[in-house]
Amino acid sequence: MKLYEKFADEIAEMIHSGVLAADEKVPSVRNASRTWKVSPSTVFQAYYLLERRGLIQARARSGYYVRAHAKGTLAEPDISARITDTTDVDVSELIFSILGSVRDPDTVPFGSAFPCPQLFPLARLARSMNKSIRHLPASQIIADMTSGNAALRRQIALRYMMHGVMLSSDELIITNGALEALNLCLQAVTKPGDLVAIESPTFYAALQILERLKLKAVEIPVHPRDGIHLETLEDSLQRLPIKACWFMSHLHNPLGASLSQEKKQTLYQLLEKHDVPMIEDDVYGELYFGSEPPKPVKSFDRKGLVMHCGSFSKNLAPGYRIGWVSAGRYAETVSRLKLMTTLSPSVPAQSAIADYLQHGGYDRHLRKLRYTLETRQQAMQAAIARHFPPTTKVSRPEGGYFLWLELPEQVDSLKLFSMALSQGISIAPGPIFSATRRFENCIRLNYGHAHTPQTEQALALLGKMVASFPES
Amino acid sequence: MKLYEKFADEIAEMIHSGVLAADEKVPSVRNASRTWKVSPSTVFQAYYLLERRGLIQARARSGYYVRAHAKGTLAEPDISARITDTTDVDVSELIFSILGSVRDPDTVPFGSAFPCPQLFPLARLARSMNKSIRHLPASQIIADMTSGNAALRRQIALRYMMHGVMLSSDELIITNGALEALNLCLQAVTKPGDLVAIESPTFYAALQILERLKLKAVEIPVHPRDGIHLETLEDSLQRLPIKACWFMSHLHNPLGASLSQEKKQTLYQLLEKHDVPMIEDDVYGELYFGSEPPKPVKSFDRKGLVMHCGSFSKNLAPGYRIGWVSAGRYAETVSRLKLMTTLSPSVPAQSAIADYLQHGGYDRHLRKLRYTLETRQQAMQAAIARHFPPTTKVSRPEGGYFLWLELPEQVDSLKLFSMALSQGISIAPGPIFSATRRFENCIRLNYGHAHTPQTEQALALLGKMVASFPES
Repeated sequence: MKLYEKFADEIAEMIHSGVLAADEKVPSVRNASRTWKVSPSTVFQAYYLLERRGLIQARARSGYYVRAHAKGTLAEPDISARITDTTDVDVSELIFSILGSVRDPDTVPFGSAFPCPQLFPLARLARSMNKSIRHLPASQIIADMTSGNAALRRQIALRYMMHGVMLSSDELIITNGALEALNLCLQAVTKPGDLVAIESPTFYAALQILERLKLKAVEIPVHPRDGIHLETLEDSLQRLPIKACWFMSHLHNPLGASLSQEKKQTLYQLLEKHDVPMIEDDVYGELYFGSEPPKPVKSFDRKGLVMHCGSFSKNLAPGYRIGWVSAGRYAETVSRLKLMTTLSPSVPAQSAIADYLQHGGYDRHLRKLRYTLETRQQAMQAAIARHFPPTTKVSRPEGGYFLWLELPEQVDSLKLFSMALSQGISIAPGPIFSATRRFENCIRLNYGHAHTPQTEQALALLGKMVASFPES
Repeated sequence: MKLYEKFADEIAEMIHSGVLAADEKVPSVRNASRTWKVSPSTVFQAYYLLERRGLIQARARSGYYVRAHAKGTLAEPDISARITDTTDVDVSELIFSILGSVRDPDTVPFGSAFPCPQLFPLARLARSMNKSIRHLPASQIIADMTSGNAALRRQIALRYMMHGVMLSSDELIITNGALEALNLCLQAVTKPGDLVAIESPTFYAALQILERLKLKAVEIPVHPRDGIHLETLEDSLQRLPIKACWFMSHLHNPLGASLSQEKKQTLYQLLEKHDVPMIEDDVYGELYFGSEPPKPVKSFDRKGLVMHCGSFSKNLAPGYRIGWVSAGRYAETVSRLKLMTTLSPSVPAQSAIADYLQHGGYDRHLRKLRYTLETRQQAMQAAIARHFPPTTKVSRPEGGYFLWLELPEQVDSLKLFSMALSQGISIAPGPIFSATRRFENCIRLNYGHAHTPQTEQALALLGKMVASFPES
């Protein structure tokens, strides 16, 4: 982190904690330079950054002022309510109709699930691709299809090791993105009619996959900060013949919640006690804002119960479609399912990423990416505070690129979706994240794209639409 | 085709028709040059080619002689027997145990399903990859994931047009190889317990997919030259609630059979009459040896009943994992299944192939590839005739890279498989191509690799093993 970034973070902290109040003038460049013993240019750069984050704004001939609502005065949403019944999943049509209508590249992509593609080292990846496939022996192409690129598997295993997970490379299977891994894992441990514990809200593709495989959902409440409610899970595991759990232990989509180390350990103990496998969807794992990489539930796994799914799609190479699963005792089953359904992910993409991981500067890229996303999160939070009704609740995720908004009760987010789309703005309405179509007054917003005047305008418009729903 | 190749074909025809008998001296270079009015160097090149094809051999200081058994005296196999029952498929374990044991790169790969990777323009493809991804706009990456690379779809639609099939590009879905397309198509039109008509023998992955999806097989006999037995199919369609057909109308794997235009039309009429969808697996379609590209059953499709699956894996870019389906009235369903299971094939691989199709010289490559494969087929047929018992029957496919051998009755091909593997030779035993584990005395051999002294030696050894089974 550069000096001006560090300095900006200190000022931001003063704003968040209320030391600097809304509409208050921030110290002049000269004063700040003297007080904190940094150069005037460092102060300039820091103030410019804070302006981009939406925390302060310049007033002509007068200096910088803390913006109204910059303190993040909006509350966080509460934990979702518990539903005791199991649910036949039937939301795929709704999800497809929503997703199908947000593909227009000219809409403001708040509803998009994809990261902003400009955030990735595409040119450097292209060089890795060029280098690696020019030297790829023809015979290796066949070998890479059946068992995966050996260099890539080694690089992934190394990263696991750095995160405190010791793997035998035998349990590592390269897949067509994490989505394929998640599909195969669920198929490996269930048959039609089985019960699967999922989070509520959850990633909508999980719902679609359950529906496709004719599985029943047991929805477990999730706190927007602390993650899944373990007592409910424990109770469900005791009462119901749950065949698998599918959880995001870290940077949950859409909430952004992460489990503490203690909760992860307790969760693993529950799995072991009930001998239930868990699919750990960890595709946002590298997008944490803190200084320490979080350990997955997989790090506690002694019995091979956890199938840990990762991907390069959200943090390095969107469109390359390279993911993986470390599938524990289910590795052989998952591997065979893969050979039967798609055979192999693209060999050039595998070799390009293997080369990049070795030579491209992945960790440097990740640090930059995390910093950019954190900046953009603050900018969008500040803008929401400016433009949305004050009873709006907003999540404060410590990573990823999604915000979860609980809007005033009277707001119908499916109606809001249509209103916004007609103005060229996409949002992801709450009901697509629930087997029971709940979260009617919630939306998920993608803050991964650059915060421009157009973004600000779109959020202002969205805020007005939200305010236009009459209180009942 | 070059002059010496044409001339070599004429000589080959004389050998096959018996004009030139085994052990007979072929005309001297000088004589041949005078008689056929070609240059001596053309004759030299032709004779050299015929030697590589295994049809003639040089004797020191004496010129070229027709090799023993070069006439292709071995008969073709007969049509498979009819089985009236439907079959629960349970052969996946057997298939995996066979496939798993042939992956050693040091074995002679007669049992391999993959084409010889040296046959493909990998360096030229790498250039297309390099060029296309350096210029790929970041925003296009997202678009290419959801709807497929537009240039690639256009190029594929153009090739359909050239083959007499008019498509709306809406029904074209790019997939992770044809294997994914076949999986998705079958899922789109069936549910567990349904009956699916397949060929006997058939591609073993079809059996695995049926087993995985809990579908029952109705096996239809196939003639090794003329393809599926339509009368049996008609009878089965009348008597049984068949929900889908999965056929290879052209260059059937493993037999090499192709339907005539008339049979394709009749087949389509049957589908239409019974309103049953057909999955047309046409992955070997470009590997025909004749001068005219065959038209698929899809070319008769007026109702959108045919889901035509193709791929670049066998003819251009193994390992890139780019296939497609033209899915007729099921396009929307198949597309949604794809979005739920793997989202998208690799975007760089899509753009590389799109560029190659436009600028790489695909048709020139295909002509060369077909010629090489035809040469290798003749070489292997000749070697089999030399080394295998004379009651061995061998298919004479007009394309592809597989031979199907019906060995003497007493041969147990699973036993032969183990014997051969212990000597470093892989073969594909007959029972893995049948839901009922038939074809015990049959094997499939891959002739796509260069015919070397090692190949000849391996076939000689295999022939001896075959002969070692005692007649019962």
